[in-house]
Formats: sequence, C-alpha cells, structure tokens
Amino acid sequence: MAILSELATEVFIPIAAVVGIAFAVVQWVLVSRVKLSPAAAASGGGKNGGYGDYLIEEEEGLNDHNVVVKCAEIQKAISEGATSFLYTEYQYVGIFMSIFAVVIFLFLGSVEGFSTKSQPCTYSKDKYCKPALFNALFSTVAFLLGAITSLVSGFLGMKIATYANARTTLEARKGVGKAFITAFRSGAVMGFLLASSGLVVLYIAINAFKLYYGDDWEGLFESITGYGLGGSSMALFGRVGGGIYTKAADVGADLVGKVERNIPEDDPRNPAVIADNVGDNVGDIAGMGSDLFGSYAESSCAALVVASISSFGINHDFTGMCFPLLVSSVGIIVCLITTLFATDFFEIKAVKEIEPALKKQLIISTALMTVGIAIISWLALPAKFTIFNFGAQKEVTNWGLFFCVAIGLWAGLIIGFVTEYYTSNAYSPVQDVADSCRTGAATNVIFGLALGYKSVIIPIFAIAVSIYVSFSIAAMYGIAVAALGMLSTIATGLAIDAYGPISDNAGGIAEMAGMSHRIRERTDALDAAGNTTAAIGKGFAIGSAALVSLALFGAFVSRAGVKVVDVLSPKVFIGLIVGAMLPYWFSAMTMKSVGSAALKMVEEVRRQFNTIPGLMEGTGKPDYATCVKISTDASIKEMIPPGALVMLTPLIVGTLFGVETLSGVLAGALVSGVQIAISASNTGGAWDNAKKYIEAGASEHARTLGPKGSDCHKAAVIGDTIGDPLKDTSGPSLNILIKLMAVESLVFAPFFATHGGLLFKYF
Amino acid sequence: MAILSELATEVFIPIAAVVGIAFAVVQWVLVSRVKLSPAAAASGGGKNGGYGDYLIEEEEGLNDHNVVVKCAEIQKAISEGATSFLYTEYQYVGIFMSIFAVVIFLFLGSVEGFSTKSQPCTYSKDKYCKPALFNALFSTVAFLLGAITSLVSGFLGMKIATYANARTTLEARKGVGKAFITAFRSGAVMGFLLASSGLVVLYIAINAFKLYYGDDWEGLFESITGYGLGGSSMALFGRVGGGIYTKAADVGADLVGKVERNIPEDDPRNPAVIADNVGDNVGDIAGMGSDLFGSYAESSCAALVVASISSFGINHDFTGMCFPLLVSSVGIIVCLITTLFATDFFEIKAVKEIEPALKKQLIISTALMTVGIAIISWLALPAKFTIFNFGAQKEVTNWGLFFCVAIGLWAGLIIGFVTEYYTSNAYSPVQDVADSCRTGAATNVIFGLALGYKSVIIPIFAIAVSIYVSFSIAAMYGIAVAALGMLSTIATGLAIDAYGPISDNAGGIAEMAGMSHRIRERTDALDAAGNTTAAIGKGFAIGSAALVSLALFGAFVSRAGVKVVDVLSPKVFIGLIVGAMLPYWFSAMTMKSVGSAALKMVEEVRRQFNTIPGLMEGTGKPDYATCVKISTDASIKEMIPPGALVMLTPLIVGTLFGVETLSGVLAGALVSGVQIAISASNTGGAWDNAKKYIEAGASEHARTLGPKGSDCHKAAVIGDTIGDPLKDTSGPSLNILIKLMAVESLVFAPFFATHGGLLFKYF
Repeated sequence: MAILSELATEVFIPIAAVVGIAFAVVQWVLVSRVKLSPAAAASGGGKNGGYGDYLIEEEEGLNDHNVVVKCAEIQKAISEGATSFLYTEYQYVGIFMSIFAVVIFLFLGSVEGFSTKSQPCTYSKDKYCKPALFNALFSTVAFLLGAITSLVSGFLGMKIATYANARTTLEARKGVGKAFITAFRSGAVMGFLLASSGLVVLYIAINAFKLYYGDDWEGLFESITGYGLGGSSMALFGRVGGGIYTKAADVGADLVGKVERNIPEDDPRNPAVIADNVGDNVGDIAGMGSDLFGSYAESSCAALVVASISSFGINHDFTGMCFPLLVSSVGIIVCLITTLFATDFFEIKAVKEIEPALKKQLIISTALMTVGIAIISWLALPAKFTIFNFGAQKEVTNWGLFFCVAIGLWAGLIIGFVTEYYTSNAYSPVQDVADSCRTGAATNVIFGLALGYKSVIIPIFAIAVSIYVSFSIAAMYGIAVAALGMLSTIATGLAIDAYGPISDNAGGIAEMAGMSHRIRERTDALDAAGNTTAAIGKGFAIGSAALVSLALFGAFVSRAGVKVVDVLSPKVFIGLIVGAMLPYWFSAMTMKSVGSAALKMVEEVRRQFNTIPGLMEGTGKPDYATCVKISTDASIKEMIPPGALVMLTPLIVGTLFGVETLSGVLAGALVSGVQIAISASNTGGAWDNAKKYIEAGASEHARTLGPKGSDCHKAAVIGDTIGDPLKDTSGPSLNILIKLMAVESLVFAPFFATHGGLLFKYF
Repeated sequence: MAILSELATEVFIPIAAVVGIAFAVVQWVLVSRVKLSPAAAASGGGKNGGYGDYLIEEEEGLNDHNVVVKCAEIQKAISEGATSFLYTEYQYVGIFMSIFAVVIFLFLGSVEGFSTKSQPCTYSKDKYCKPALFNALFSTVAFLLGAITSLVSGFLGMKIATYANARTTLEARKGVGKAFITAFRSGAVMGFLLASSGLVVLYIAINAFKLYYGDDWEGLFESITGYGLGGSSMALFGRVGGGIYTKAADVGADLVGKVERNIPEDDPRNPAVIADNVGDNVGDIAGMGSDLFGSYAESSCAALVVASISSFGINHDFTGMCFPLLVSSVGIIVCLITTLFATDFFEIKAVKEIEPALKKQLIISTALMTVGIAIISWLALPAKFTIFNFGAQKEVTNWGLFFCVAIGLWAGLIIGFVTEYYTSNAYSPVQDVADSCRTGAATNVIFGLALGYKSVIIPIFAIAVSIYVSFSIAAMYGIAVAALGMLSTIATGLAIDAYGPISDNAGGIAEMAGMSHRIRERTDALDAAGNTTAAIGKGFAIGSAALVSLALFGAFVSRAGVKVVDVLSPKVFIGLIVGAMLPYWFSAMTMKSVGSAALKMVEEVRRQFNTIPGLMEGTGKPDYATCVKISTDASIKEMIPPGALVMLTPLIVGTLFGVETLSGVLAGALVSGVQIAISASNTGGAWDNAKKYIEAGASEHARTLGPKGSDCHKAAVIGDTIGDPLKDTSGPSLNILIKLMAVESLVFAPFFATHGGLLFKYF
C-alpha cells in the first residue's frame, strides 16, 4: 500500500485547496490597496506616502484629480459592460444547462428502463452496482456542479480583471515594475481561484457521492464524469461565445474607427471602444479560464473513471484513487511558490525584464512541479498496481506513473516555448513574416499561413511522444495523468495568461483617460509581453485539450465496451474521415459568426458617428452601452450553430450509427482539430506581432519596414485583422469541439452502449 | 463463370485502347488544320475558303499577316519554354527514377535475402510462389514502365496544348464556337492519349509478366503495383514541381508587372510573361495529367492486387481479374461518344453556352458510363464470387460490384457540382466573398477561408457514403473499383480540364499579339469557363485520390499481414496524429517554395526592367528565356524538400516503427490531407472568381463593387494572389502526398513486413 494514509489524503487535498483560495484572496487584497478614488490617491500620493519607496520613475502628478476620476469612470464602464455580458450569457447558460441536465437524466436513466433495482456491475458481473437511474441522477448533479464551479470562478476572475485594469494604469505612473505586479497579482487571483475551487468542489462531490454509493466505486466515478461535462459545457459558452464577442467588438471597432474614420485604436470617441475592452476580458479571461477549467475537470474525471475499474478501485485504495487530485493539490502549492518569484523575490525595473520574468514563471513552476510529482508519486502510490486497459489489467509501477505525469508537464513546456518561438517578434519566423509585407498583404498572408502550418510540427511530435510513453506505461490512465501533468501548473499558466488582457485594458484606459505617451509606452510593453504569453497559453490549452480528449476517448471506449477501434472497419473509417472534417465545418461557422457579429457592430458604430452630433470632435458622448449590448446579443445568437454542431454530433452519431462510428468521429476530430487549432492560433499571433514589430521599430530591420502608416505597415494590419478571428475565436474554439464531444460521449456511453446504432440495427 | 470469355477480354481491352489512341490522333489532325503560317492562313482565309461556313461573327481581317506571324512567334516561345522545362525536369526525373529503381530492387530483393529459390506463397502457404528477388526485379520494371508512360503522355499532352493555344486565338477571330472546338479538341487529345496509353501499357505488362509468372498470380500482381508507384512518382514531379513552377512565374510576373510597373497582365513587355504562360501548361496540363494518371494506375493496381488473392486470382478467372481494365476500356468508349456531343452533335454559338456545354460533358459521360458499368459488370463478372477481406473471404455479387463502381462515379459528379457551386461566381458563395471586399482585403480573406472550410462538408459526406457502401459490399476491392468508377471518365475529365489552360494561353497570346478587345473578350469567356472546370477537375482529383489512397492503404495492410489497425494502440495512434500533421508540414514547404521561387523571379524581372533600355517603352526586347530558366531551376530545386518528405516518410516510419505505425500515418494523412486539399483548392478558386466577378461587372451587384482598380477590386486582387499557391500548388500537391505514401507503402510492404519496426524491436 501507499505511504500516505487515507486520512492524510483526506486532509491534504482540502488544505491545499483552501491555501490556494486564501492566497487568491491575499492577492486581491494587495491589488485593492491601489486606490481608485481621487481622495485616497491624494493621501497615498506624494514621494513619501504609501508606496513611495517604489516611486523610482515617477514623473506624472499622482494627485492629478481628473486622471484618476477618468480612469475610475472608464473602469466602471468596462466592468459594467462585462457584468452585463455575463448576466445575459448566464440567462442562456441557465436555460441551456437546465435542458441539458434533463437530457442527461433521461438518456442515462433510460439505460435500464428507469428501473430502481440494483444491477450487475458493468465490469465485475458478479457484483451488484447501483441502478442506472441513480447514476443518471448523480451524473446530472455532477454536471450542474461542474458548470456552476466554472461559472463562479469565471465570474470572479472577470471581476478582479476589470477591477485591476485601471489600477494597473494608475500604477504605471509609478513605474513599470509596480504596474507589472498589479497586473500579475490580479491574474494570479483568477488562476488560484479556478484551480483551487475546481479541486475542492470535485473533492467534496466525491465524498458526498460516496455516502450514497458506498463500495460501488464504479458507479460513483462514472457519475463524477458529469463534472467534466459541466465544466466543458460552460467552456462552450466561454470560449465560443466569448470568442465571438471579443472579435466582433474588436473587428467592428477597427473597421469603422481605424479604417473609415481614421482615429487611433482605443480612442474614446469610438462607440465600440468599451465593448472592445470588455471583449478582451470576456474572451481571454473568462474564455481561457473556462477552457482550462474544463480540461482540468475532464482530465481528472477521465483518470478517476479509469482508476475506479483498476486496482485502486477494485481494492478500494482511496489514496491511490485520489492520485489525480493529489497531483493538482501539489500543483497549487508549487504555483504559490512560483508566484512569489514574480511578485516578491525579484523586482522588475525595466521593460525588457517583463518577458523573461513571465517565461521564468513557466520554467520555475515546471522544475518545481517535477520534484513535486516525484514526491507525491512516491508517497501516494503503491510500488506496483494494475490499470484497466481495454479489457485486461496492466501492471504499472509508481515510478512509471511519475514518468507519465512528468512527460505531460514537460511536453507542455516544450509546446509553450515552440509557440513563443513562432509568435514572438524576437525571433526570425515573425520577422520573416514582417519582411514579407514589403511585397504586400498577399505575401504577408501566404507567409503567415505557412508559418502556422510549420509551427504544428514540433508540438505534434511532443504530444505524440507523450502519448506513446504514457500510453505504453499506463494505457489510458497514463494519458489522463499526462494531461493532468500538463495542467498541474494551471494556476501559474492562468496567472500569466490573464495578465495579458489586464495589461491590454490598462493601455486602453491610459489612452482613453488622455494620459501621457510615456505611460502608454509602459502599458504597451506590458501588453506586448502579454501577447506572447497569450499565445503560449493557447498552446498549453490546445496541447492539454489533445491529451484530455484522448483520455476521455479511451474512457468512453472502455465504458462503451468497445475492445478495438479498427480503422479497417467501414463504420470506423467513415467516422474518422467525417470527424476530421468537423473542425473545418466548425471553423467555417465560427469565422462566419465573427463576420456577421462584426457587421452588426459596424452598422451601429456608423449610425452613432452619423447621428450623434459632435462625436468626431469629442464634444458629443458616444453610447457605449448599445455597442456592448449588440456584441452581447450577437455573440449569444451566433454561437448557437457551432454550439449545436458540437452538442448534437455525439448524440446523433452515437444514437444512429453507434459507438464504433462515434469512436471514429472522436479520433478523427481530435487528430485533425489539434492541427488547425495550433496553426490558427500561431498564424494569428505571428501576424499580430509582425504588425507590432513594424510599429515598435526597435531594430534596424524593423525601421526599414515602418513607420506606422507605411505600405508595409498597412499590409501588416491586414494580416493582423485576418488573424484576429483565427487566433481568438475559431482556433481556440476547436479545443472545445474536441473535448466536449469526447466528454459528452463518455457521459452518454452507457446509453449508446445499450440503445445506440439504430441505423445499422435496422438496415 | 462470366459471360465474356477470356479471349473476348484479351481482344476488347487492347481494341478499346487503340480506338482511344486513334481518336486522339484524329483530334490532333483536326486541330492541325488550323494553319499557323501566314501564307496558309491567307489561302484558307476569306469568306468562302476553308472553314468559311463557320465564319458567322467574323470581323477581323483573317489575312492580317502581322497578327498571324506574331501569334506563331509567341506560341513558339511558349512551346520552347515548356519543352525546355520538360527536358530539364526529365534529367532530374531520370536520375531520381534510376536511384529509386535501385532502392526498390534492393529493398524488395532483400526480403528473402536475395535468394533465387521459390518460396511458399504469402496467402496460400501450401503453394510455392516465385522468389522475392524476381518480384523485386519485375516490380522495378513495372515502376519504370509506369513512370515512362506517364512521362510520355504528359509530354505529348504539353506538346498539343502549346500547339493549340495560338490556333485557338486565331480561331477566336472567326467566333467563339470555333475557338471552343479547337481548345476542346486539344484537351481531348491529352485526355484520350493518357487514358488509352495507361490502359494499354498496363495490359501489355500484365501479359508479358504472365509469361514468367505463369500460375503465380499473387506474385504477378504484386509486381504490377510498381506501375502505380511509377505513375505516382512522376506525378510528384508533375504536380509539385509543376505547381511551384506555375505559381512562381505567375506571382513573380504579377508582383513586378501589375504592382510595381502598373502594366496589365500578359503584357509582352513583362519578361516573365512567357514563363507565366508556360506555367499554365506545366501546372494544369502536365501536372493534372500526371496526377490523374497516377490515380488511375494506382486504383487499377490496388484492385488487381486484391483480386489476385480473391476468387478471381485463386480460380484463375482472367476475365474477372481484368474487371478494372474492362471498366477503363468501357470508359474510353463512353468518353469518345461524350466528346462528340461537344464537338460534333451540338455547336456553340454564344459565350453563355460554353459553361453549360462543359458541364453537360460531365453529366453525359456519367449517365452513359452508368449504363456501361452495368453492362460490363453483367458480362465480365460471375454472378457470385469472393473477395479477400483482411484474412477472410467475403462473398460478393456482380450487381453489388456494379454498385461500388457506380457510387464512385456518381460521388465524383456530386463533388464536381459542389465544387462548381462554391467556386463559380454564378452562385451566392463567391458573390458573398466578392461583397466582403467592401470592408477590405482582411474580410475578403476571412470569408474566403470560411468558404473553403465549408466547401469540405458535402464532398466528405459523398466520399464517406461511397466508402461505406463499397467497403460494406466488397471490402477494399470495392473501394478500389469505386475509385476506378470515379476515374472511368478520366478522358472527358482531362479534356475539359486541359481546355482551361489552353484558353488561358489563347487569351495571353491575343493580348501579346495586340489583337482587338473583342477577341480578348472571347478568349476571356473561354477562360472563365475553364476556371470553373479547373476547380471541378481538382475536386475530382482529390476525391479520387482519397478513394485510391484508401484502396492502396487496404492493399498495403493486407500485404503487410496486419489484421487490425487499432486506434487504441499507442503505436497506431501516434501514427495517426503525426500522419494528420504531415499535410500541414508539406503545405508549409510547398507554400514557402512558391514564395522563394517567386522572389527569384521578381529579382530577375526587376533586373531586366532596370538594365534593358527601352523595355518599358516597348522598344527593347525582354529576355524571356532567362525567366523560363529561373522558374525551371527554382521549381526543381524547391521541390526537393517536400518531395523528400513524401518519399522518405513511409521508408523511415516503416523501417523504424513498423507497419502498425505506418498504417496510422497513412490513415491520418489521408483523413486530414483530403480536407486541406479541398478547402485550399476551393478557397483559391473562389477568390479568383470573386475577382473576375468584380472585373466582369455583369450584374447590378457586381458593378457596385467595381470597376477594375476600385478599392474593392484591389482587395479582391489580394485574395486572388493568396489563392494562387493554395489552389495550384499546395492544395493539389496534397493528392500526391496521400497517394504516393500509400502506394510506396504497398510496394515496400513485403520489406516492412519482414524487416520493419527496428526501433520497437530493439527498445
């Protein structure tokens, strides 16, 4: 048996989660010390007051009453816009989740004809398990818990982000280091809240469900998979709806503002400017958060459901069973220490230190986590145990499992760095794309697309090696814990990811509040680093989505009783080729959605410029709220077709064609979707930074292409605009496509196994 | 047994092939009646001379000595350029084929350690088959035969195309109908030559090999697969090398001519103009021809090799065995009749009749062919027979097999029409893309990409249904004959496909020869219809490539002794995900290749404009030959990396990782590649026609976007330029990737089965 006792496990997991939540609260308190009311700012201002010791670069009057009031006003508008979006979204989420909860209950309840009698277990036919009706009930409860946890964490993350952006702007007056810490701390709030609450709710649910299930761990953990489905369904709204929102606002604002009216970005005269800033939060914070939360919940559930039919489950070894949760607990502690490196152990003094500081976060957390995994594998796992492998039990050692988790962790780091290489303008790929702007927008687009295609190679090899190693060592359980390994540093990952849009907003607020050029330069520097980390975050998200989907796929196949998914069977092959097509269909939908939503925004902005007197001159006041509303409504409406495609495909394929074809569809969508997702994200990131490279003019080469407004720059702007929906909507949304279809198949597996394949049964 | 006797089969196949070749010669003779020497034109000119009865719309002096001389001169330059490219290419082809022939011989010869003793057969262990060394020898011979047949057909096709373009221009003076017939007849020469010579050489090879193999049909048809590999290797040069050539010249010419110097397309002052016209022939005629020839040879070989271990082979039923060849023979007769509908039964009198006439060709040939297949299935097949299905024998009826061929044929038609819908500017998708140019190039690109993604849906469903039906009826043999069904009307398909570049060139010649605006309008109308048929042709090519690859994949799996390709095995899954990545890697390479080659062209064109005095004024003479040479050299050099990726992947994966991983790679590349290929071709085609839609201004809506030179038009031109490499290089090249890897795996299967998987063996 393992060294760690069951009691110690029962204590350690909640403590780690509580520590994480407490740390998030502390960060929030620290951020809130930056006062946003003029009076407080005045009392805290001055060379010797408050944070005076940090005021190295101070050169603007901190007491400037107007600036502070203005910042507070803008933040209020952004915050209200974001809240209004969320509330509208939540109404639809509420309706959707209610209906889907009923669907889950009915489908799963029907497996044994709504019988309330105990049935022989699926895997151990000699034992009796709880009736399917109760599994249906608990799955539904778990589903709702997952959705609510994701919703609450996302909501709080958005709150802190919109709470912190003006504070970052104000701190930028004191120096880039102060602004960085404010933005980073706020990001950390989001990261730790999400990781900890995800863990603690899952933990409580398991313990609560155990009261009913008792020894029937098979049923217990089958029901728990609903948690993953709930988290992932919420991510559909966050990623797809949020992705459409952010780009509709962004593209709509740019098309009228920059192109037609020739006013700069983030100009307060542009009626869509608040919607654009709201969009950064909606897409990159709530969207990314719900996406990674979904991955986290799903990989935990996939690992748990496989473990429940392995020796951990059969022998009722609770500590071994909780290994996935223990890894996440260690992750929270590791990330906590890592965060201190950015906020307390070192101090940022110059712009050029920002990006290395963020990258160091990744390296430190990965290195520490490797040690953490080694310790927990040693403590929590028996030296030898068995893992269920499509019908047979496979022997695994604790060190073998350590390897599985570690390889996922390190594959994540490799994907992160490759993404950085292809999207940061510090390296030749983006510089080559910028250079191709010399011959116009067309060559820029060709080179950008080629870059995206090329950037797929190494991440796929990294994923393939992780899959091969972890699969060989511990079958689908290995894949699930590899995914967990990649996600174990999720708190740090989310912190540096959420840091990006906060800095971006801070820049926007500086511009709108009419602050000096130097402040804007500082926030721009923060933002530029944020662009790269955003790309890295997307790389992590898609990499983990690939592993998670595969783990869910494996769990689904096991649960559906499929022993072999043979490409040489026509049922499977047509699933494979149609599955590989789905990401294209889905992307076509999301890209069209952005286009349609942006068009509505364009019309409204044009209308306001034409009808509100003095708007261009700065004397009239634009109607920000209507633009926010248009983005909100359009994004919700436009996400219905792609959302329906994701939600209905597994149900239709499973019911009509059966589990074999569905297995093909899942595998096809996975292997094809991951490529498009990576290439779309990186192409978009590269175009964005190629434009920034020309704008910044930091090198001799960059200056020959610039300045802003040159033909080269115009070509670069076209690339950037094309990249917007690719990198922020259609690309990342594919994560949801592949994960949600897989987890939905897993949850509905009992139904498909019993009633599925109607078409082949009758023809 | 079948109704058709062995003797009748032995007679019918060569007769059909000879009839096809004779028909091609007749078409050539008819085209050559259009005289290109001023004297002859003068004698044939005038209202009552030569073709006087056709001269309905005549309004230009047919005797204009200068125009005819000029046309002849330009045609000579294009023809010389094309020949010079082909000769240079053939030198490299010669070296490559020689080396690869040695590789084939050594790899396959080593299977039984170069032993000259008979060995037990692979499938019937109780019988003795010819030694592997001789299989290696005959495979090598078949490989060279396939390569040489493709080379000769491609060469003759290019000759007739470059022979016909100026003749089409001159005929355009007499009316659009005359010009159409000239262009179409020339296309038919290519189509019939290729289909017939492909059939007759394969037929002769089988009969010749039989002299040695006698009753060992297993060995005989295993060796024959080399023919497919040869045809496909040649297609690598045709499609990839040709694709790079054509777009390097096109993009290079446009970037300096249109953008920098502001001179129109096809302006004789542009030094790259001849290279551009040569490129149309190289890419669309030699490239498409070798691609479809490869598909044809491969699907025949895949069907034959499966049949040889089915009841046809076991019972030595020669007629049943030759069913694939009989289908192709019937196809030649059907296409011959179909061609008469375009050239003799009906006459084109107005521009608007061109496109329907070409589309009718597809419908007529498909309808007639359905009857033809039914007849030959009834005559050549026993009522019941068995087909080898991964270890077991599966019973099939002759009507079942008819269904397999017919469903492939009709799926091709569906793919063709869907392609037309998404790429012709007569329908809303392209018009929407054109409309999106209002908000600039960025929205044009986003809408174009979304259109391409969307256009994948129906073709994939059509392919999936064909696969399911034919697979369920007759396993891999069903897939192979479905592919053959799709390709059975290859002669007509190639005729309407080759018609496109001939018309395009005719327009270029009219422009360069300074002919009147009305002549140019007629050739433009011919060309516009050609654009759509080119897109349809690409749809056919990729659709058939998908089926062919699957058939080859099945044959490979059978030969390699794999019974199951289980996605749940890590070896297979990593193959699948890496395979799905290969099309991206390959596309990144081919797109970069076009960029680099175009850049070299840009430099040369700039150099000539700067150094040749009076070039811009039209008094200096540009150095066309240097530009042709640059395109030639660059295309050969730039195709090495993608070519190496295709050729080496199966060898490396098979040798190091074994047949299971290789199966995964082939399946992954197939399901992922077909999507990118379709979307890239259609996106490019849509952008091209969106631009043409604005330029033509044929509707109220189109006129609001135009005219040429408007902002909308500029945005459309950017889309068109981006689409060029997508639709003519990277998209169609993917056909080669998926087919060539599959056929190479099949040919090397005996080696991989014996010596493959070194890495897994030792670790």
